[in-house]
Amino acid sequence: MRVFIAGADGYLGWPLAQHLAARGHDVAGADVFFRRRWVEEMGSHSAIPIAQTADRLRAFRERFGKEFRFWEGDLRDYGFVERMFREFRPEAIVHLGECPSAPYSMVDVHHAVFVQTNNVTTTFHLLFAMRDLCPDAHLVKLGTMGEYGTPNVEIPEGFFEIEFRGRRDRLPFPRQAGSWYHWSKVAGSNNIMFACRIWGLRATDVMQGVVFGSRIDAMADDERLLTRLDFDQAFGTAVNRFSCQAVVGHPLTPFGKGHQKRGFLPLRDSMQCLTLALEHPPQAGEYRVFNQFEEVYDVTELAGKVQKVAATLGLPVEVRNLENPRTELEEHFYRPDHRHLFDLGYQPTHDVEAELRIMLRDLLRYRDRIEAKRDVLIPDVRWDGQRKKVRFLEHDRIAVHET
Amino acid sequence: MRVFIAGADGYLGWPLAQHLAARGHDVAGADVFFRRRWVEEMGSHSAIPIAQTADRLRAFRERFGKEFRFWEGDLRDYGFVERMFREFRPEAIVHLGECPSAPYSMVDVHHAVFVQTNNVTTTFHLLFAMRDLCPDAHLVKLGTMGEYGTPNVEIPEGFFEIEFRGRRDRLPFPRQAGSWYHWSKVAGSNNIMFACRIWGLRATDVMQGVVFGSRIDAMADDERLLTRLDFDQAFGTAVNRFSCQAVVGHPLTPFGKGHQKRGFLPLRDSMQCLTLALEHPPQAGEYRVFNQFEEVYDVTELAGKVQKVAATLGLPVEVRNLENPRTELEEHFYRPDHRHLFDLGYQPTHDVEAELRIMLRDLLRYRDRIEAKRDVLIPDVRWDGQRKKVRFLEHDRIAVHET
Repeated sequence: MRVFIAGADGYLGWPLAQHLAARGHDVAGADVFFRRRWVEEMGSHSAIPIAQTADRLRAFRERFGKEFRFWEGDLRDYGFVERMFREFRPEAIVHLGECPSAPYSMVDVHHAVFVQTNNVTTTFHLLFAMRDLCPDAHLVKLGTMGEYGTPNVEIPEGFFEIEFRGRRDRLPFPRQAGSWYHWSKVAGSNNIMFACRIWGLRATDVMQGVVFGSRIDAMADDERLLTRLDFDQAFGTAVNRFSCQAVVGHPLTPFGKGHQKRGFLPLRDSMQCLTLALEHPPQAGEYRVFNQFEEVYDVTELAGKVQKVAATLGLPVEVRNLENPRTELEEHFYRPDHRHLFDLGYQPTHDVEAELRIMLRDLLRYRDRIEAKRDVLIPDVRWDGQRKKVRFLEHDRIAVHET
Repeated sequence: MRVFIAGADGYLGWPLAQHLAARGHDVAGADVFFRRRWVEEMGSHSAIPIAQTADRLRAFRERFGKEFRFWEGDLRDYGFVERMFREFRPEAIVHLGECPSAPYSMVDVHHAVFVQTNNVTTTFHLLFAMRDLCPDAHLVKLGTMGEYGTPNVEIPEGFFEIEFRGRRDRLPFPRQAGSWYHWSKVAGSNNIMFACRIWGLRATDVMQGVVFGSRIDAMADDERLLTRLDFDQAFGTAVNRFSCQAVVGHPLTPFGKGHQKRGFLPLRDSMQCLTLALEHPPQAGEYRVFNQFEEVYDVTELAGKVQKVAATLGLPVEVRNLENPRTELEEHFYRPDHRHLFDLGYQPTHDVEAELRIMLRDLLRYRDRIEAKRDVLIPDVRWDGQRKKVRFLEHDRIAVHET
């Protein structure tokens, strides 16, 4: 299958190209390297050093025996998208070409506008190019479980059948996102659902949980094939950031009470799930939603797992709760469905602790890189509009876990 | 009250400035005159000639004995919004500064992107300027009943209490919009709801039905105070377009089967309702939704009313159904709530036929202007992406109504 990856330089895009190539697919992709610049703007860098594009492409050819056709450019330029689609004629498109950060979108008015208009525009350009150039192709769009928020009822996969005042209908499940970024993903979901309805396109909208982990098997031991791993407040997600904290002996920092529940999955499972979606496309006109995560965890429970595995590697750390820079519920009901991918054959690869062990070992090699940017481990972007480092909550201090 | 109107040159903005001034409020506003250019781009002009800004402002001062403080500029320039808010210190903001056209958003990829990014950006800029410069002000945002689409259950005002798998919650009612434009309004609603939650702003989100009519009382007989009235496919809404068609003896043209149901209200009632919202602001942090319409009508039923009133004015016309350029249900259940405004005291001013008589008499004076652009009365922007004039559906021809 010819698969086009929008955002091919990113945390997910680059391993996905490798995973698909290893399975025999023909892969192409584009990136404008925004992610590298955003992380720099946040005063940080990837914990794992990432190769320049020319080196990545060379390593890809050596390892997989085929080219990865790569374009550098901005998906907000519609002519650029058209030219790539004309040349590559994709049978599937994986859209990872959006700004993926809640805190980045909350920095100020300009970041809010940038994140939403960037994400809406790139999605539109892919949809229109599909309509006009490859209407049978399958769009796999990366959304987020964060689109749903934390309602007090179970969360179905995209749609639910309800009765209201004596009548029934199947309706989109209401979204209650928690940042300008998350709302941009809701806008994308809405636009894609509508494009499938009016143009007969087919799409899988992936409500992905929080991904963690440093590698997939396809990378083997080639450092040029490694993907980025961020630990700053904007692009480092919970478990990855905890792991980087552990490596430099910094307290692990759940926000507020720390009982936020989220769906999580390892990087290699994310690759497995995206591939399952690609290899089992929906019908023409079908818009389907997958809730993509392995299991729901409480954030403090995960911090405890990182702490425990770190201790076995000789890295004692404490868990200390931080003032919550976000406006969110810190204790809540959370029970999302995630049947679709399991029905297609998703099998979790490792348990969380095994995956954490692999990641922590990888990160230990780059301890100095994390140490050099230690300052970014405490956030300062707040949902109320202030920009001020949050403080430790002394009364919520949690004892060091003894192992 | 100091009320700032974003989009003060438009069909609703200009009469609202007058209506509020007549009630003793201090009014200011801004516009970049996009609407005048968009209608030109669609090959049309307003049926009712509209004065240049200097003349409008002079007439305003003469009639209401006070200034209408007006800025020409683009709300996508955040510095511009900040400067106006610093100078005027609004106590309420009415946001009519968006592109309001479904067909315009469906022209091509560039129009889709423009409408969504323009509408998202202007709303963001008003929200952030409120947060930083007038956090106690009340935002009245013009949304549309079209955000809800046509579900098979009753439509509440914004939120509903549901039971799902044995648990209960109050959730945003799911949106199923029918164009890129309508989805931009959903995005605006979501962003405003979230801003109220995280920043404690107060807002009324007005899900307005289709407005029709040519005047409000405040205009009296001063032609400089009249507002625009469009009849092209993109900016002329159903009843206004039917009325313009009647005036030049063109068949009235429901789309498809013509049994789409929508909420409608006269221009003067729209002014009354927006004023009720302004004069009864919500609490800090409250995001409330008003479904703003007088009554639900079937489109063919309204065409019949226009036909009947036109006949009494010596204007015989037939109703002839057109091929539907849109992808939408042409027969469906539709029962939206609209209690909130009635609870605040909304009283419909005239019956529909009385309002149509006033409008048709106004339009008869400008028959030549409509005749000159007769070609725009048949649409060519189609939801499937083609641009091709739609045709009459001969088998759905409806006999001329005899009066």
